[in-house]
Amino acid sequence: MDETLLRTLLFDFYGELLTDKQRECYDLHYNSDLSLQEIAEHYGATRQAVWDLIRRGERSLREYEARTGLVARALRRREKLSELRELVSTLGESPARNRMLALLDELAD
Amino acid sequence: MDETLLRTLLFDFYGELLTDKQRECYDLHYNSDLSLQEIAEHYGATRQAVWDLIRRGERSLREYEARTGLVARALRRREKLSELRELVSTLGESPARNRMLALLDELAD
Repeated sequence: MDETLLRTLLFDFYGELLTDKQRECYDLHYNSDLSLQEIAEHYGATRQAVWDLIRRGERSLREYEARTGLVARALRRREKLSELRELVSTLGESPARNRMLALLDELAD
Repeated sequence: MDETLLRTLLFDFYGELLTDKQRECYDLHYNSDLSLQEIAEHYGATRQAVWDLIRRGERSLREYEARTGLVARALRRREKLSELRELVSTLGESPARNRMLALLDELAD
């Protein structure tokens, strides 16, 4: 699967279980797209130290997933919700159909 | 909310993050309904030691939830799915409706 999507989901699910520094560096690098050099300058640390934090953070996120499988479950749910949305879209226009689509939007988040 | 349901969900989501002994004792006590005395005899441990493992396990589970909020998210999802199911139930009989109900069953797990 798409590594970028996987990283986003891993961080969304388990990011709060990382140490503050791991979470911040991981977030700045993968979500805000800052280079290791930029992060290192921001913290007054070395590039290597930043990379170690990110790598250790990522290892923890993957370990949480390997144990709980919660992201994998979310991905299976996503497929079913997408099939459900296709079926609802084929229904004739009605308030019930609109409410179903709204619920499916909320569930997709 | 219902403490029994909450305990079940916490264990389902984060049980694999506990130590083996914490997980086993918690499971035997809350899911298999064994008394502390029965578990203590099974392990050749004291009642107090078993209770400590369970209590520490439960504290960890609640700590994971306090940080990630994944169970709370699942509960909100459950409400939306239940409203969706009610709306789908009002539709006329059709293969699409049956498929939607089947998908909703799978999503409810």
